[in-house]
Amino acid sequence: MKFTDILSTEQFKRSDIELIMKFAAKFEPYAQKKKQGAMLAGKIMASLFYEPSTRTRLSFETAMKRLGGDVITAVGMEYSSIAKGETLADTARTIEKFADVIVVRHPLIGSAREMAEAVKIPVINAGDGAGEHPTQALLDIYTIKKERGKIDGLTIAMVGDLKHSRTIHSFVNLLRHYDVKLIFVAPDELKIPKEYLKKLDEKRLKYEEISDLRLACKKSDVIYMTRIQKERFSNLREYEQLKNSYVMSRGLIEKINPKAIVMHPLPRVGEISLDMDDFKGSAYFRQVENGVAVRMGILSLISQ
Amino acid sequence: MKFTDILSTEQFKRSDIELIMKFAAKFEPYAQKKKQGAMLAGKIMASLFYEPSTRTRLSFETAMKRLGGDVITAVGMEYSSIAKGETLADTARTIEKFADVIVVRHPLIGSAREMAEAVKIPVINAGDGAGEHPTQALLDIYTIKKERGKIDGLTIAMVGDLKHSRTIHSFVNLLRHYDVKLIFVAPDELKIPKEYLKKLDEKRLKYEEISDLRLACKKSDVIYMTRIQKERFSNLREYEQLKNSYVMSRGLIEKINPKAIVMHPLPRVGEISLDMDDFKGSAYFRQVENGVAVRMGILSLISQ
Amino acid sequence: MKFTDILSTEQFKRSDIELIMKFAAKFEPYAQKKKQGAMLAGKIMASLFYEPSTRTRLSFETAMKRLGGDVITAVGMEYSSIAKGETLADTARTIEKFADVIVVRHPLIGSAREMAEAVKIPVINAGDGAGEHPTQALLDIYTIKKERGKIDGLTIAMVGDLKHSRTIHSFVNLLRHYDVKLIFVAPDELKIPKEYLKKLDEKRLKYEEISDLRLACKKSDVIYMTRIQKERFSNLREYEQLKNSYVMSRGLIEKINPKAIVMHPLPRVGEISLDMDDFKGSAYFRQVENGVAVRMGILSLISQ
Repeated sequence: MKFTDILSTEQFKRSDIELIMKFAAKFEPYAQKKKQGAMLAGKIMASLFYEPSTRTRLSFETAMKRLGGDVITAVGMEYSSIAKGETLADTARTIEKFADVIVVRHPLIGSAREMAEAVKIPVINAGDGAGEHPTQALLDIYTIKKERGKIDGLTIAMVGDLKHSRTIHSFVNLLRHYDVKLIFVAPDELKIPKEYLKKLDEKRLKYEEISDLRLACKKSDVIYMTRIQKERFSNLREYEQLKNSYVMSRGLIEKINPKAIVMHPLPRVGEISLDMDDFKGSAYFRQVENGVAVRMGILSLISQ
Repeated sequence: MKFTDILSTEQFKRSDIELIMKFAAKFEPYAQKKKQGAMLAGKIMASLFYEPSTRTRLSFETAMKRLGGDVITAVGMEYSSIAKGETLADTARTIEKFADVIVVRHPLIGSAREMAEAVKIPVINAGDGAGEHPTQALLDIYTIKKERGKIDGLTIAMVGDLKHSRTIHSFVNLLRHYDVKLIFVAPDELKIPKEYLKKLDEKRLKYEEISDLRLACKKSDVIYMTRIQKERFSNLREYEQLKNSYVMSRGLIEKINPKAIVMHPLPRVGEISLDMDDFKGSAYFRQVENGVAVRMGILSLISQ
Repeated sequence: MKFTDILSTEQFKRSDIELIMKFAAKFEPYAQKKKQGAMLAGKIMASLFYEPSTRTRLSFETAMKRLGGDVITAVGMEYSSIAKGETLADTARTIEKFADVIVVRHPLIGSAREMAEAVKIPVINAGDGAGEHPTQALLDIYTIKKERGKIDGLTIAMVGDLKHSRTIHSFVNLLRHYDVKLIFVAPDELKIPKEYLKKLDEKRLKYEEISDLRLACKKSDVIYMTRIQKERFSNLREYEQLKNSYVMSRGLIEKINPKAIVMHPLPRVGEISLDMDDFKGSAYFRQVENGVAVRMGILSLISQ
């Protein structure tokens, strides 16, 4: 297999995902600061951020630097003349003369692909608006594997705004390659789009859509929480009510399913209570650490 | 001794200050570009700036890089979703997965401590609003020691806005561990807060509060100038008058006390006239150089 | 010869230009990612950008990093207190304590020189408002030499806004040291300033001013396109008309002069049509690559 661009979770077969996970595992000691690497020495990654995403950017930059690589960074690209004055293709062709790999975050769907089509160096999509965030989905899969030892056979609940979250969409795209059961927990206004259910049907995977978080907790091995954003609601009272019904707390999970794993792409803004931080199954900060290992694996794979 | 976080000048005993100065002295050849180091190779410092401070940030980053370490930088954090969406504790826990040490500048008092309490890696306070700026105070002490050969026995004047300057407050906190006499030169509106005088009383240190810069120059071995900020005054005419009465010029110092050392945390905006730049005792740009050495010492100490 | 600052194309004799080109050629394999260098290991470049210029900044930073050097970066300097609070000279003296070389972009003419006069370390002007952009001109010369094998004897057309483009002005300043013929293609409102024609007269170089792009294409070995900026025109209809008359397309150049070289400082916003990208003589992205080699050469020369 030869990786080139990382643009969409659609591009991966199960064997691709497994390969990335194998590489990520290999790089864990480097991500965990136990070992120093030089595998990417002499390589330069360009971080091009057309909207702020400090967490994702620093995760990629850390991955690069801990393997001996270097980084050139352009944040606030949305205000730069390079952004106003030229096409994404021209920008990519320019950056290609500087860097060995491009990591791009952009508010518009398809922007990473547009860049990838213009250049020969690999392009990694670090989030393209309402589109995809494939490396987030890969680190989520990796985290489940690591926390549970396997993915096949698990029941995984996703909670919150399943309609708008690109993280959820990319995640479902990857999970359909495994023998999992999915539980979607969302209010009517924020249900998972039908196209994703269709994809699961094609794979003959079981899923259910429910609105009760307690029930989901009971049935699931993994509970993936997401934020519910105020601005999605016209009725503010409805928002307040929903927000409160989708809060993961220690009282809830320890009583119902103390062996569950609780995940979140961060930032959390209330949907996981602070008392959860000492809960053994709370994996959200471990996700961050795994993210560095997964990105190390990806950067290493595409630099071969 | 084991250093962990550098949050406040309150945390230091005299022996701690001396240890940091010893380390800073050791690193001077590296700060002065005479030697290249690799002591921090494989270490990553996170620069988190929630308000701009180019001077302080680049000083820390230079210290790290000249010792072989690397840096991940996030400026404009105040506009990032990471800042809006989550607590400082959560941000710190995320950055902990990337970096070996956090340097944080934030407009609110206590912010660095909040981060430090959330993580195991060291956190350095690079200015927390009206709170503290401990590394500035340490480099100021270091500069006096280097310029004068000692600190005990000196008379040190501080001039300008002694009420609001966190630099001054952190400086006094450190100086009280030495046998110094302090002279505070400020207009009535901008006098040093009583709590600092109390601290000096507790140590039985001598000090006086005067308003005449000439007199202070005559009596002092070191004169530490600070800016008087326009926005502190309701009466603009009063401001203009005061501003002009606290200007250090070559004519003044050479006539009254040509052996004095003149310091300033920079930027200066008129309170030190340009003709001072060739004055032998003008140490304000040497402070910048010493700042790199002191930060090298600190980074090295807390990475042990 | 001893290089110190790179402030203006006025400072170069022909032998200086040749020396830089020789160094640039030497560094081409490094710029083209074929070789890794360590010539600048232990050196730190400060990127100080008082206005955004992602292309130029990343070009310099890439040059530095691919030769083993490191970079401290301050973008958005125009909003920093360092910029508001102090003179350029003071800022330069501060940065001098951190870095081995300063690269500065600033909206005001003479700003780079102001910094250079204040410090002992080299300062490189990366664009000072309507002033100069000497490294752009050097990479343009280098590109012609590389594409054509020589500069003497060529006819070079410059097209577009010749009045305001500092790139053009710096370019003409360098070209007058060669035996070239220049053709200036511009509307009446945007003609090359008389002072530059005078400089050519002094060197007894031939030139002509015409308004017809087709004729220029026919006569020239190299055609250097530039942008025509809307905001220069009071009459919008006039702008639209002019804009369209200075567009380089494949249909045009292949019919009239298929062996011509077409250059552009980028970004292009319509004055070079997309079908030009596959045209053999289109050198605008090769200019970007050459820019890294030229800046490597300069950084290496001034660090000796």
